[in-house]
Parts: sequence; structure tokens; C-alpha cells
Amino acid sequence: MLLLAVGTRHAVADDGYRLWLKYDLLPDAAQRKAYQRSLRFIATEERTNPTLQAATAELQRGLNGLLGQSVPVVGRSSGKKGGIVLRVDPNVRIDAGSGATAAALAKEGYRITTEKGNLVVTGQRDAGVLYGAFALLRHLQTGQPLAGISLSSAPKIQYRFLNHWDNQNGTIERGYAGASIWQWYELPERLDPRYTDYARANASIGINGVVLNNVNASPRYLTTEYLGKIAALASVMRPYGIRVYLSVFWAAPKVLGGLPTADPLDPRVQQWWKAKTDEIYRTIPDFGGFLVKANSEGQPGPQDYNRTHADGANMLAAALGNHDGLVMWRAFVYKADVNNDRFRASYDEFKPFDGQFADKVLVQVKNGPLDFQAREPFHPLFGKMPQTPLVLEVQITQEYLGFATHLVYLAPLFKECLDSDTYAKGPGSTVAKIVDGSLDHHAISAIAGVANIGSDRNWTGHPIAQANWYAFGRLAWDYELTSEAIAQEWTRMTLTAEPKAVATITDMMVKSRDIYVRYTTPLGLHHIMGHGVHFGPEPWLPSTPRNRWTAAFYHSADAQGLGFDRTASGSNALGQYAPQIQQQWGNRQTCPLDYLMWFQHVGWSQPLRTGKTLWNELCYRYYTGADSVLWLQQQWQQVQPALDPTLFANVQARLQTQHKEALWWRDACVLYFQTFARQPIPAPFTPPTRTLDQVKELAEVYQLK
Amino acid sequence: MLLLAVGTRHAVADDGYRLWLKYDLLPDAAQRKAYQRSLRFIATEERTNPTLQAATAELQRGLNGLLGQSVPVVGRSSGKKGGIVLRVDPNVRIDAGSGATAAALAKEGYRITTEKGNLVVTGQRDAGVLYGAFALLRHLQTGQPLAGISLSSAPKIQYRFLNHWDNQNGTIERGYAGASIWQWYELPERLDPRYTDYARANASIGINGVVLNNVNASPRYLTTEYLGKIAALASVMRPYGIRVYLSVFWAAPKVLGGLPTADPLDPRVQQWWKAKTDEIYRTIPDFGGFLVKANSEGQPGPQDYNRTHADGANMLAAALGNHDGLVMWRAFVYKADVNNDRFRASYDEFKPFDGQFADKVLVQVKNGPLDFQAREPFHPLFGKMPQTPLVLEVQITQEYLGFATHLVYLAPLFKECLDSDTYAKGPGSTVAKIVDGSLDHHAISAIAGVANIGSDRNWTGHPIAQANWYAFGRLAWDYELTSEAIAQEWTRMTLTAEPKAVATITDMMVKSRDIYVRYTTPLGLHHIMGHGVHFGPEPWLPSTPRNRWTAAFYHSADAQGLGFDRTASGSNALGQYAPQIQQQWGNRQTCPLDYLMWFQHVGWSQPLRTGKTLWNELCYRYYTGADSVLWLQQQWQQVQPALDPTLFANVQARLQTQHKEALWWRDACVLYFQTFARQPIPAPFTPPTRTLDQVKELAEVYQLK
Repeated sequence: MLLLAVGTRHAVADDGYRLWLKYDLLPDAAQRKAYQRSLRFIATEERTNPTLQAATAELQRGLNGLLGQSVPVVGRSSGKKGGIVLRVDPNVRIDAGSGATAAALAKEGYRITTEKGNLVVTGQRDAGVLYGAFALLRHLQTGQPLAGISLSSAPKIQYRFLNHWDNQNGTIERGYAGASIWQWYELPERLDPRYTDYARANASIGINGVVLNNVNASPRYLTTEYLGKIAALASVMRPYGIRVYLSVFWAAPKVLGGLPTADPLDPRVQQWWKAKTDEIYRTIPDFGGFLVKANSEGQPGPQDYNRTHADGANMLAAALGNHDGLVMWRAFVYKADVNNDRFRASYDEFKPFDGQFADKVLVQVKNGPLDFQAREPFHPLFGKMPQTPLVLEVQITQEYLGFATHLVYLAPLFKECLDSDTYAKGPGSTVAKIVDGSLDHHAISAIAGVANIGSDRNWTGHPIAQANWYAFGRLAWDYELTSEAIAQEWTRMTLTAEPKAVATITDMMVKSRDIYVRYTTPLGLHHIMGHGVHFGPEPWLPSTPRNRWTAAFYHSADAQGLGFDRTASGSNALGQYAPQIQQQWGNRQTCPLDYLMWFQHVGWSQPLRTGKTLWNELCYRYYTGADSVLWLQQQWQQVQPALDPTLFANVQARLQTQHKEALWWRDACVLYFQTFARQPIPAPFTPPTRTLDQVKELAEVYQLK
Repeated sequence: MLLLAVGTRHAVADDGYRLWLKYDLLPDAAQRKAYQRSLRFIATEERTNPTLQAATAELQRGLNGLLGQSVPVVGRSSGKKGGIVLRVDPNVRIDAGSGATAAALAKEGYRITTEKGNLVVTGQRDAGVLYGAFALLRHLQTGQPLAGISLSSAPKIQYRFLNHWDNQNGTIERGYAGASIWQWYELPERLDPRYTDYARANASIGINGVVLNNVNASPRYLTTEYLGKIAALASVMRPYGIRVYLSVFWAAPKVLGGLPTADPLDPRVQQWWKAKTDEIYRTIPDFGGFLVKANSEGQPGPQDYNRTHADGANMLAAALGNHDGLVMWRAFVYKADVNNDRFRASYDEFKPFDGQFADKVLVQVKNGPLDFQAREPFHPLFGKMPQTPLVLEVQITQEYLGFATHLVYLAPLFKECLDSDTYAKGPGSTVAKIVDGSLDHHAISAIAGVANIGSDRNWTGHPIAQANWYAFGRLAWDYELTSEAIAQEWTRMTLTAEPKAVATITDMMVKSRDIYVRYTTPLGLHHIMGHGVHFGPEPWLPSTPRNRWTAAFYHSADAQGLGFDRTASGSNALGQYAPQIQQQWGNRQTCPLDYLMWFQHVGWSQPLRTGKTLWNELCYRYYTGADSVLWLQQQWQQVQPALDPTLFANVQARLQTQHKEALWWRDACVLYFQTFARQPIPAPFTPPTRTLDQVKELAEVYQLK
């Protein structure tokens, strides 16, 4: 066993570094041969354009791997047939809808057609050609035919961001895959080859903007010293169509500028930001703009000077002036009265300012009202700020979704939000249509995912978590793709081409998030995880006058029942939604069971639509959820022959951890809630063999500093 | 340029992961052929012994790579010739000196001889055979002949430790190569293959103990949950002859046990540690013991209860009882009076307890009295605690030596301490002889290096920093090896076999630490680096009544001169040393110039033995030191043809950063000290073009949180 592990690993192991850009030799020789006939050369007339160089290099690398042949690059096709032609044509027709952003979106689109015996990849600009090159490679990686190929695609959302919550000291807030990949002490002199591979991966899924640093921002990034480092990173990203953005520390004019204030209406402050912004653009001409977390969780902000979020955001927009940059102002704020319902805070603080933000300002709103829980209703601001372009912020890193030990595919979570109907302009007013700007005719649109990327060799810790990075990018490009299609595509590119294994893994992935919700926070439970560290269950955390916002606050368990009353009889947070939603979610009979505890306090013995009482349904979900991890294990076992052994073993071991922790969640929650419900664990389930105190001890381990 | 980088890197790049166990095909075909004749099989009669399995697997892997042939494993040689025989023979004679530890040391030794046409690797125990296997591979990797081979070696020090300052949250205190390699959330179910490679690397240089966690210890490691995880790690280390140790949090009985006290004389506390220790040994039968940082830098300890370090250490030793384990009690303490000289603190607190420590207790002493400065005189406790076995603690991670951006080979630093004469029992009473126990006839000896290992793909950030890990292990085994020999060996195994390149790189390495000292802290300057972060220069940090121990305290610059008076007219820390040393270092004429500012306050215009005044010598060293980095760059450029291009570029870029930072140090220090010396920069050097304020701003960037 040991001998085998030591002796064979080095030669063959797939360590996951290559992500979905693996380019291993296609197993089907006939297919390879068919592809080879059409892919004999790469022709491009613009060989000095860095983006086309990147496209060419990627095609060479990909074809070299997939087909086992090296493909020459020629200046122009000049009558040759059987190759790839890369072409920038500002006049090529790319369908990007009819919205206010259509022209901008078309500029990033691509078209792949057959012309005069060649595969022609065209974009209005070089970035489109690069995206087309990656689309062509994906086409081959997923084994689709080239004959008669005719693809055309443009993104639906204009700015597609990764937000890195990376700190200057190399740690990552809510990162579970090692340290930050940004090596600040080495920059600008050394450019880690990993930066290029990061840019390639992002470009392959259409990410075109990267916020490099944590929203809890250090002022260090705005120093001249660091701007030089950031410029070096930007130089790596640029050929891949990616612009660099920064999170900014609101009080930077005080810390760096020596000013006595950071009041956005103070002319010295305005001047400082103007000068700093000019310096940034001198250093990084294509700098993207600022992301701001202000007056939230202890961060300074304009409210420190009795100014508003709009005052702050508009001041920064003015500092950007004519530079081509944006301000993303985060709506994640909850410094409001602790006796209030935190669910309401963001809406209450931002709704009044709709229409008061400057042109370059977008308000960045999390998918749900609380904080990236395993399942949240969509954020009530969506549909209620029609005059403001809203950035949808989702979390790719699994802060509340099992860190890097639980297999949870997030596309269904992202889709659930995007597909939610806000009824803002009647039925069909989905969050997606608000985010893409089409519903309110905005000239700008954006989506952001909080990255799950770290220095771990495989980037994301859990090998399957790579799919969440991938899925975010694919959905940011086209939110109409299904979770299944993306999972299938990713699996084929990354894990195996064996059809049955692809089907099995896709099925596991698509069901995984529901499984996670069942054994952690079923029926709309939320925020009952371990305090601070956000790992494991801690539903027993009691409210105190100083800290009311604890697990006990959010689940509101008592002798009568369970759940937070957010109807008119409670906090009335539900009143922030459209009347149609209020009606549906406010009625215990029609509220989706998945949201029940978000809005209703329900009696333990109350029968639900499933026919079971609340208590029995709760137990049913916890037990079947935990058992479903055994199902995941069985499914994974079945696909072993189709997988690289190192990768197989990696996920296999994590699924063991996941089951251990699922049982921990189950036992913690049913035992704890049982102290209120005072009912037995229903048949056919067996009561936990450990006591509540024993499970509490487990959770407490992870609170030890 | 871009095309080339993208297109070729993936296939050939040496990412440094394999360390010095690279096993690339030997370039000399004749040599390969000669080797092949003697290495046709591996015979071992103990095929189920995990350590011999590890040795066999390593030989197979190594020979497969070096010679390009796969080597079969057979049960016994039974008359076959031309192969390797691995043999455990408790009676084999291994010379390990005549000290009290000789028998123990011989058990880890090995003998490699030619018998009946086979290469026979023998050890008294399996670990010795493993070390012999690695020695044989090293022999081949460095291209030495096999004919008539006769090697025998035993370690000079019994316990050879790496100390990891890794935290439970994955960060590393003073780590500059990514996150911790210990993946606590994945353990015990998943064993990262990297753990095995870590164990292989350590075994190859004779490391036989690993303290897994930071001396600023979390109580989390002592929980049942974590002991299970630690047991899993121990299972990976065990076949490689490595035992696992823990740093312990003194107040664990309070935090974990719910006791009202951690008083070492309280029976409940004693009982708690006894029970916990028993639990540990039930979980990890070969657990190694405890490392303790108590009553230092805010850590709790026995002094909180008016008990002594000896009380604390002896209580833990009693808890170990009959278990085969040790207590390493750190002497790095300085909570003493801030008006005192911190140099004195450790000696003053520990010297009185010599003879009062229990048998299983060792006192762990840093190489120098202050804190891992670029150059320190040896710690005055060496030679002054004859009744206590002392662990020498050195720092492999470059906390004060340029992090991961400066090329600094540390073997000369380690050797400088080991070779220092304490005069404890007359001339020749070196630190080495105290540490190996021979001077005071101790039955136990140990050495510890604070690891520079992180999750970076190449383990250590700076590629050359791998050599510091390597050199520590090699010197821990045999401190008589020269810095040159180790550098040469490492370079051949890791970078290139080309003789001229090996010579050039060895020369760079051997000189690198002196170069670093020259441009940062020449002439015995110390502790003038950036506050807290320990990066870059900050000599201007002023003493305040609340914080006297600052740069200004340690350099004591004033209008008259520079340096800390530690003679009898000053703090008299010098009085802690032997009379011979007091005499030499206390006299301005005989004190080594490298230690001058450690002990003497010298006038700016005072002529030194070099013929220059202090001010001119100081400038000379700063300027020539910084210029020497250009020399390093030139040397590196010369070896380019002999190196992997990715590796070459990596170090090349870091040398650029190093020069930038060397200039920063130089300018900061000469400009700042000039404000006291009030003399011009001497010819032929050019005054810095920037002002002191400008350099200060640079340093302040790295203080921004």
C-alpha cells in the first residue's frame, strides 16, 4: 500500500493545478483524427496583439494536448484550408440583444463559423477572439463535432468580477484553500507563473475584472509602492481581457494623506482622492475602479461624518472623473439598531437613496438579505432600486457551505437567486433581468463572485470546488445555462470523458447543495453555524443584550415552535418585497417550505404540506440529508475506474469528512431543537447515540483560538 | 516573449516541489552505466517493515530517475550479485563516539559496504537503513564512485527537530512561503500526499522529530478531536523515523479542563496533565513530547502562580511518567524589567535553575541572546548550565534575514554558533560540544530549527531557501560538515551538476549571509528592523517610557557614537560570558568587529582596526554590502545555461528585489546615522539621492495593516 502510493504517485497524479484547462489527449482516436483534419494551423494577421498572442498560445497548448500534435502559427491563411483563422472585425454581427448595454456586450462576443474550409473565430475586438478561442477549445474538450460549426455568443452581463478577500499579509478572509496567490513581497520584480494561469482560467470563462484585495481593505494598496506592484499584476491580466480593481479603505485620506478627516464633502478629501485616482491611472492606465465596504462591520465610512452612502460613492465617482472606471458601493451594512431585524438593514439603509447615485456608481448587493447562508430568499433590494444599477454579489468560497471539506456545487444556488421573480414590473421581473440591466434599461451591468481561490496546488482545496469558480464565470456570461449543463461541461473538461461517469458526477453535483441544506439548515433555518469561524453547528448560542444577533435570535426556537416571524406580526421584513411575494411567503400554506423558517414561527406539531408535522419534517430532513452523503460516497465509488486515482482518493476522503460533519450537524440540531419540541425522534430514524453536551464539545473545539 | 512563456513552461518547468530529491536522469551516460552494473536489484528480507518499505520505495524511485531503469525488489539476494542489500543487524558496529549518547546515536547510524559483489546498507535498526538508503542516493546524486564504497555515519546529536510555528487557522508565525501544510480540517480522513513528501525530505537529512504547532500554542491541539488528526499525521511520519511533538498552551487545564488554575503544584492540574498525557499516548504510542513557551511574550506560565520554570517543566516531566517523551522548555523569556537590557533576560531567569530540572527536561536556547538577528554572539547560557541538557534553537525561516526575497544561505550562521568557544571547560568548549552533550556528559542531546516550510509549491518561497532546510538537517546530523560542502552537495542534487555552475552557486551561497549582514546590520548592529513585521529598516524607532526596547535602544546612537555598551560600564551583559570572552569582547581593540556594536559604544571618528573610522567603516560596509547584491546578480547570470529556465528566472527576479531592498536598507541606515555622526558619506561612495523622509515613507508602507 505504502510502496504503491510512494512509487506511482509522482509520475501520474493529477494534482488539479490545470483546472478545467487540462487538455489531456482525447481518448477517441477517430475523433482526434476528425479534429486534426480541421485544425492544421492557426492563422492570424495581428501577431503582435498580446490578446491574440494569448489566444494563439492557448490554442497551440490545447491542440497539442488534446490532439497530440503541434500546430503552427501562420501570418495569414492565404488560400490554405483546414486551419483556424483568428480575426478581429469591428463590423462582425454579434447578437447581444437590444438593451442599453448591447453594443458593449457585442464587443466581447465571438462568432465561430466555417469559411472557405477554415474555422474562423471572429470578434469585434481582440477579447472576443480570445473568448472564441476558449469556446472552440471547450467545444473540443467536450467532444462536439466541428462539421458545420456555427457558434455565436455574447455575454449577458457587462462586468463579470471575481472579488478576492485577500489581505496584505497573505491571509484570505473566508479562504479555505491556502494563502493568497498574490505574492506582494515579490512584486513587481517577480511575476509568479501562476498569475498567468490564473488569468487564463478566468478568461476561459469570461471573467473580465478582478478586485485584488479584501473589502475590509488595507490602505497599503493605495501607496505608491503597492501601485507599482499592482501595475505588474495588471500587466499579466491585460492580454487576457481582465482589468484590475481595488477595494479601498475609506479613511485612506487620513492614514495616507495625513488629513484630519475623511468627510466626502471636505474639499481636501475630494482633492486627495482625485490626486490618488490620477496617480493610479498614470500607473495602471486600464485600472477598473473601486469597491467599497463602508460603515459596515466596523469599517469607516461617510456616515462617520453624518454623510450618506450616496455622498461617499458620488465623491469617489467624481474623483474618477473622465477615467474609465467604476465605483461599486456595497449594500452589506448592518450597523443599525441591534434590536431590529438584521434582515432589514441593507434595504432600510439603501432604498431611500435610489436615484441619488452618480452615473459611475453601482450598488453591490448580496444574493440574500443576511449573509451568504446555504439558502436565502433573494435580497429585497432587487426590484426596489430601479434607478440604480445593482451588482449581484454571490459567494463562491464556501464560508457557510462546508469550507473545503463538503462537496457543494453552487450553480443551483446562484441560479435560484437569478431566476427569482421580484415582480418589480410584473411577473417575469427576475433578479437576472435586474442585474443585466434590461428591466430598468441601465447602460451598465455587473455581477461579482467572492473567489474561492488560494495557493493550494489545486487552487480551491476541494477538487469539486473548482466547478464553483467555473460555474460562476459561465453563469455571469450566460445565466440561462442550466446547472446541469455547466456541471456536465466542467466534468468532461476536468475529470473524465466517460459518459456514465459524467452523468453520475453531474447528478451528484446538481443534488449536492440541497443535500447540504438538508443536514445543516433545512426548512429555511439560517445563521445557526459556529460563531465567528462559521464552521459546524452552534444553534444553542444564546442572545444577550449586547449580542442579540445570535443563532437563538435567528431560529427563535421556543416551547411553541420554530422560525423567525418576519410577517406583519413580526419584524415585517417581508414588507420589503413586492405584494405578490408578501402574499405568497406571508401565508403559512403557500410559503415555500425551503423558506418557511425565514418568515414564519411555526408550531412544532403543526402539519406541513408534506403531511408531516414541523418537528417530524425537520428530523426527516436532517436524517435524510446526512444519509444522502452516504449516497454521494456510493456514487463516487462507482466512478472510480474513470478517474485519476489521486483525484479519486482526494474526494473520497473529503466525502468521509463530510459525512462525519453531516452527522455532527444532524445530531447537534435535532438534539438541541428537541429540548424545545420535547418530542421523540420519529421512526424510522434512530436517536443520536451521543448527548447534546457531547456534540457541543465538538463544536467548541473549533472556537478555541 | 509571452508566447514562449505560455507555450513552454508547462512541459519542462522545475517548480521546485521535489526539493533535493529530484532524481533527474544523470547526464553522464558512462557514469550511469557504471552505476547500473551495481544497482540491479534491491534485496531485503523484511518486506513488511514500513521503514524498510520506505527505504526500498525511495531507492526504486531514485534509481528509476537517476539511471532511467526500474529496479526490482527481491526477498533476499541469495547469491545474486550486483544489487543493493538492505539489512537490519543489531550487532553491526557503527562508530558513534564514546559519549553517554553513543549507544542511542549508533542505533540511527548506517554502514554502506561492498560484500560479495553487493552494496550492503546496514543499520542496527530500520531507521539507520533508511538513512543509509538516502545516503546512497546522495552519493549517486553527487556523482561519486561506487567502487570500494565504504561509508559509515551516525548522528552527533540525538534529537533533531523541526519546530513549526504553524497556527490552527493555517497561518504561520514568521512564515514566508504560504500557508501551513497541515490541513487540519481535512484530517484525519484525508492524508495529503504532501505529508509523505515532507517526511521523505526530512528523513533524507536525518530530521527525526517534528513539533507540529506554534510555540504560541492553541489549546485546540490537545483536544480529543485534534489528537485524532495528529495521530493520522504521526502515521505518515512513523515509517520515516519521525516522531511527532506538540507545543502546549500552559493554561490548557483551565481552558480545556475547566480547572480554576494552571498552578503546576496544584494536584488537580498535575492530574489533568497526567490524564491528558496518557490519552495522547493511547492515541499516538510513539508521541515525542512537549515544547513549552511559558511566561514569555504574554503566554501564561508557572510564574503566574509564583512558581518557577523548573516547577512547570518538572510537572510536565512527571506527567510523562514512564512514557518515552521529553519536555523542551524554552529559555526565550523577557518579561523582566523593561529598564534592564533584554540581552540579559534569558540568562538571568534560567541560570539559577541549573540542576533543578527533571531528567526528561531540556532547556531550549536560541543561538543568540536576543532574537535570531542576522548576526548574534552565541547565547551566554551555553556553558553556564552544565547540569542541564540544552537544545540549540536556530531559525531556518528568515524572520530577520530578508523573508523569502533575499538569498541568504544560513549554514555559516548555524556554524558560527556551533563553532563558538564558550571556554566553559577551557578552550575548545564549543557550543557544539555542549549541545551534543559530550562536554557535560549528558545522556540526551537535541537541536531544533524553526521551519521555513509552507504551502508554496516549492515549500520555501525562495528556491535557495530550500538549502537552509537541507543545511539544518545535515548539520544537526554532523555539525563538522562545512558550509561549503553542504552548499555544494545541495546544489548538485537540486540545481545542476555542471561543475563550474556548482562552484559559482556554492560561492554565492557561502558569501550570501555576510553580504546580508553588511547591508542591514554591519559591525554588530542589531534589532533595527521594521517594528512588528520585522521587514525592512526602521532604525529611527524611538524609545519611549512604555516601550524602551526599540531600534534606538539597541543601537544607542548619539552625537558621540554608536553601539550598546554591554561592558561593566554599561549593562554588563558581557559579564554573563566566560572570563576569556569578557576580556576579548570587552576590549575595543580585541572585540571582533562583527560584534562591536553588540558590546561597545564607539565614537564616530574612532579609528577601527581596519584603519577606517567607525563612520567610514559603517558606510563602507553598507555600500559594499548593497553592491555585493549586484555581484550576486552577475554570478547568477553566469550560471543561467546550467539551470532550468523557470528556476533561473525565479531567483533572478528575487535578486532584483533584494538589490532594491538592500539599497533601501543602506540609504535608510546611512542617512539616519548621519544625523548623529554629522559627517559626509566618504569617497568613493555617492550620497543617496533620496532623503531620509523618503526612505521612512517606504518603511511605513509595510507597517500599514
